[in-house]
Amino acid sequence: MTQMIDRAETIRNGVDTATMFATLDAIKAQPEIATFRFRAHNQWIGGAHNRSTIHDFYAACAEDTSRQSAFALDAGEPAILLGTDTGPNPAEYLLHALAACVTTSLVYVAAARRVKLAAVSSELEGEMDVRGALGISDDYRNGFTKITIKITLSGDASPEKLREVVERGCRRSAVFDMVSNGVPVDVDVVTP
Amino acid sequence: MTQMIDRAETIRNGVDTATMFATLDAIKAQPEIATFRFRAHNQWIGGAHNRSTIHDFYAACAEDTSRQSAFALDAGEPAILLGTDTGPNPAEYLLHALAACVTTSLVYVAAARRVKLAAVSSELEGEMDVRGALGISDDYRNGFTKITIKITLSGDASPEKLREVVERGCRRSAVFDMVSNGVPVDVDVVTP
Repeated sequence: MTQMIDRAETIRNGVDTATMFATLDAIKAQPEIATFRFRAHNQWIGGAHNRSTIHDFYAACAEDTSRQSAFALDAGEPAILLGTDTGPNPAEYLLHALAACVTTSLVYVAAARRVKLAAVSSELEGEMDVRGALGISDDYRNGFTKITIKITLSGDASPEKLREVVERGCRRSAVFDMVSNGVPVDVDVVTP
Repeated sequence: MTQMIDRAETIRNGVDTATMFATLDAIKAQPEIATFRFRAHNQWIGGAHNRSTIHDFYAACAEDTSRQSAFALDAGEPAILLGTDTGPNPAEYLLHALAACVTTSLVYVAAARRVKLAAVSSELEGEMDVRGALGISDDYRNGFTKITIKITLSGDASPEKLREVVERGCRRSAVFDMVSNGVPVDVDVVTP
């Protein structure tokens, strides 16, 4: 009974903070376990329809064995972009990646700082001029010119503290970093 | 019958090239229709589990009415990153967004250039040192240090032509641009 209560007390926002702090300590003691490699395997199906399979990853000096099955993600384009709406389009997936990462980061930050969150939601929008991606003009970039995120959150802390949690969450988010600052991408092509 | 044959001839790689060229002409004639706004609405569920709903978007000077229903995307983290594997993690979603965009872009380029593709697949990997995202050290960035994409494709063209198609596909991909070069992200926070 005592053990159950102790365990319940370490779980905040659905995050086991005891495990979180133990993980941080383990990485500090043995930094080589901090190297992670994530992967996606994509297959073209036809037109704008393609599917990624996401399963294996490398963490803590070994290939992961905890993930029981693969996730399948279907991409597409709406009719106006010549697809048949077989899934969100790639730019929408990028917005989701950003929303998900900022949300998880701020939830973890809140858990570590003893802030109990009641609700978190976000609205993201990105604007592009498709003359870039469609190859009509070099005056427009291919991607979004800007992304806006509106995050609404509540919890047992002051508005100032909640804002700090968001600020720190963004500052530590892997996808926020990548989308804001860019990442070198190496392309290797294999032909018959 | 003649009409059917004509139509079949305009469809290449599952892309209706007659519609594609008509779309390009329409945008050239009326550039204001080239502004698109894509969106994601994200809701925190608990711990590392959150869900994006993707439905509405703005295109061709109006809110879209073609997309019949919303797409729901669940994100999560594996146990080693304190989640319960409720979905791919945000960094994996970013890899999928990149794979999907490069694939669709090169498929469209091939369709426009009369290259019939037989198969396209890709393997993506990104490496990160999680000491950045976990806030242990500022010496490591939060996101991937590098992303590698290995694209394997075949079709009725020479290896040189297929490589050109990939090169042009990457150069015109919205997500390739965003992930390579970064995008300004504006964050607005709403508290009670």
